[in-house]
Amino acid sequence: LACRDNRVIGFGRRAWRIGADDPRRAVHGLKVGLALALVSVFYYTRPLYDGVGGAAMWAVLTVVVVFEYTVGGCVYKGLNRAIATASAAVVALGVHWIASKSGDKLEPFIRSGSVFLLAATATFSRFIPAVKARFDYGVTIFILTYSLVAVSGYRVGALVAMTQQRVSTIAIGVSICVATCALICPVWAGQELHRATARNMDKLAAAVESIVDDYFSSSSKPSPSTPPASSSGSAAANAIEGYIRCVLNSKASEDAQANLARWEPPHGRFGFRHPYAQYRNVGAAMRHCAYCVEALAACVRSATQPPAAPPGHASRRNGHLGGACTQVAALCGRVLREASGSVAAMATSGALDLAVAEMGDAVRELQDDLRALPPSTLLMLDEAAQLFTVTSLLI
Amino acid sequence: LACRDNRVIGFGRRAWRIGADDPRRAVHGLKVGLALALVSVFYYTRPLYDGVGGAAMWAVLTVVVVFEYTVGGCVYKGLNRAIATASAAVVALGVHWIASKSGDKLEPFIRSGSVFLLAATATFSRFIPAVKARFDYGVTIFILTYSLVAVSGYRVGALVAMTQQRVSTIAIGVSICVATCALICPVWAGQELHRATARNMDKLAAAVESIVDDYFSSSSKPSPSTPPASSSGSAAANAIEGYIRCVLNSKASEDAQANLARWEPPHGRFGFRHPYAQYRNVGAAMRHCAYCVEALAACVRSATQPPAAPPGHASRRNGHLGGACTQVAALCGRVLREASGSVAAMATSGALDLAVAEMGDAVRELQDDLRALPPSTLLMLDEAAQLFTVTSLLI
Repeated sequence: LACRDNRVIGFGRRAWRIGADDPRRAVHGLKVGLALALVSVFYYTRPLYDGVGGAAMWAVLTVVVVFEYTVGGCVYKGLNRAIATASAAVVALGVHWIASKSGDKLEPFIRSGSVFLLAATATFSRFIPAVKARFDYGVTIFILTYSLVAVSGYRVGALVAMTQQRVSTIAIGVSICVATCALICPVWAGQELHRATARNMDKLAAAVESIVDDYFSSSSKPSPSTPPASSSGSAAANAIEGYIRCVLNSKASEDAQANLARWEPPHGRFGFRHPYAQYRNVGAAMRHCAYCVEALAACVRSATQPPAAPPGHASRRNGHLGGACTQVAALCGRVLREASGSVAAMATSGALDLAVAEMGDAVRELQDDLRALPPSTLLMLDEAAQLFTVTSLLI
Repeated sequence: LACRDNRVIGFGRRAWRIGADDPRRAVHGLKVGLALALVSVFYYTRPLYDGVGGAAMWAVLTVVVVFEYTVGGCVYKGLNRAIATASAAVVALGVHWIASKSGDKLEPFIRSGSVFLLAATATFSRFIPAVKARFDYGVTIFILTYSLVAVSGYRVGALVAMTQQRVSTIAIGVSICVATCALICPVWAGQELHRATARNMDKLAAAVESIVDDYFSSSSKPSPSTPPASSSGSAAANAIEGYIRCVLNSKASEDAQANLARWEPPHGRFGFRHPYAQYRNVGAAMRHCAYCVEALAACVRSATQPPAAPPGHASRRNGHLGGACTQVAALCGRVLREASGSVAAMATSGALDLAVAEMGDAVRELQDDLRALPPSTLLMLDEAAQLFTVTSLLI
């Protein structure tokens, strides 16, 4: 029992930390509650309830299903739901008219046959990437509404009135959702994407700097037998690993956010046709850069771990090369930081051009000096240059 | 208009290719249609309709929403939906009893207040990773059912009968879904995961072999000015790039499939407690390996593209090193292929041990020879060894 208590307390603590890390999550929960409370007013006030009747249920259903964390997600689902319901209702009423004109024997077959055909086609269309990215939810709702209206037409009399009521309640639900989501502490998918991009650049910069620093500072010590220092070193290394991992695994969330951000109305400094697709390109370049950094980190790890490295190699890398490399890494980090700053400020900065030029000079200097160094460093700089190109495209 | 026709034809052709690439997708569409047609029988047959009444709508709704491509997804959603509906109904009936006992004035506030509180808490709980991975859908349905029952209790008389009917129709919908999904050409998430893992290993093997082959075969030609050959070469390089990209971007789909595979009943050679989590570890090791291959590919690209490489370097790499490197790469590819084969067959193979031992020998030979070679190759072999370790854990 005590063990169970402990687990409950631990769970509570974790939940608290999640809320404390990002209070917007707790706010999101409150917003959902508020939207539902608003919708439930339709049940309590007599004139409103008389207007929509039992179909008020659909407003509640819509609020629960459509409410999303970001405004983009909410608008995407809301629009998809409203449009899909309306279009499916129109199609279904047409089929209903045909079915009711045919004989009693034929009627169920026409209804079920049309449901079968449309559902199969629509489900298959969800595998097409273009449909998947924009209308995945809409297709589900289309199937849902179509089959409900077409099939229940067999039993329900006033189908047109029922459908109309349903569409209007869904519209009410969607507008309550979008209003609550966008007016009270909105979370914009575009802004999230923007911040994540700048943050990832900073993380990469920190990773590059610390890895190269580590490599040369550890090799300047005389012997590889320094176990007491390794614990703090490995903690820092783990943090760096985490940074790189975070950049590497950013693809899925980035794609999802870019998809949702397209649905958002203009807000803040994000215009109507903000180039969200460019963020994906920058993200891809950053991941490319992160692969190189990861490979570099692995190089450093394999070079520092086994003491099998020839002593001549170790001493050689302390000389002129070490200084040049550290300088290149520092400049590379600076370029990334400048790029992150200019992305965050949405402006080209002269300092960025300057930093890139300096880095180019340092790279050329280094290239003159070294042939024996791992080519990964050069490579990484190539990538940084490529990243810069894409970034400048964005701005 | 002709342009529009062309677009329609192009769209149709793409859709056809998607279906032809994987006929199971078309079959999935047909299955959804079939399940809906089965459910619609509840409307047509008088005794069945009398049994469930207007609540038959909920069975249709359940089928549309719960039906998923893989069996795991279907079972996950079905169980979540059924359990969440039942538990939410019980809680809501309790609150309904309390609310109906309180005064007329207080009643709406108790109902809406409880909806607000529960919805806010439940929505917040979806941010907790453990809940998100297993019960994300269930929490949504819990909120939905709870607010429907609690709020509509204000107007509807026979709430208990209504709730009971709803739960039973949802159970009917879920069982139709799971039966159709699992009995007719089932698509198992576990099997998909298994195949994807083996396929990705094969892709990595092909990538490693072809990159190193390319590097040494292109450098054995006297000059870097071979534009006619570069077109076919770049096509092959693009294919390899695609392979690596595919492995690198596999994380999201792998995680999702491992999550869903947990819900699947035992099938084929996949037992009840098949170690799906291990697939994730293997996947992570493979991605790690892919980073190295990607870095290696970039190295090769930067080395072959600019003719600025010193001639001495180019001639040196054709000698003994070239042969040794190609051999190591070939062995590394063989190890990966053996590992893929043994994963596919779910058995340890003696050939794998042999191949790893041979590769180890070749690496040692190479290490003796080279100091000037990019360390990435060594690194990659380390990774392959690590991959092997994880794989052997799995079997």
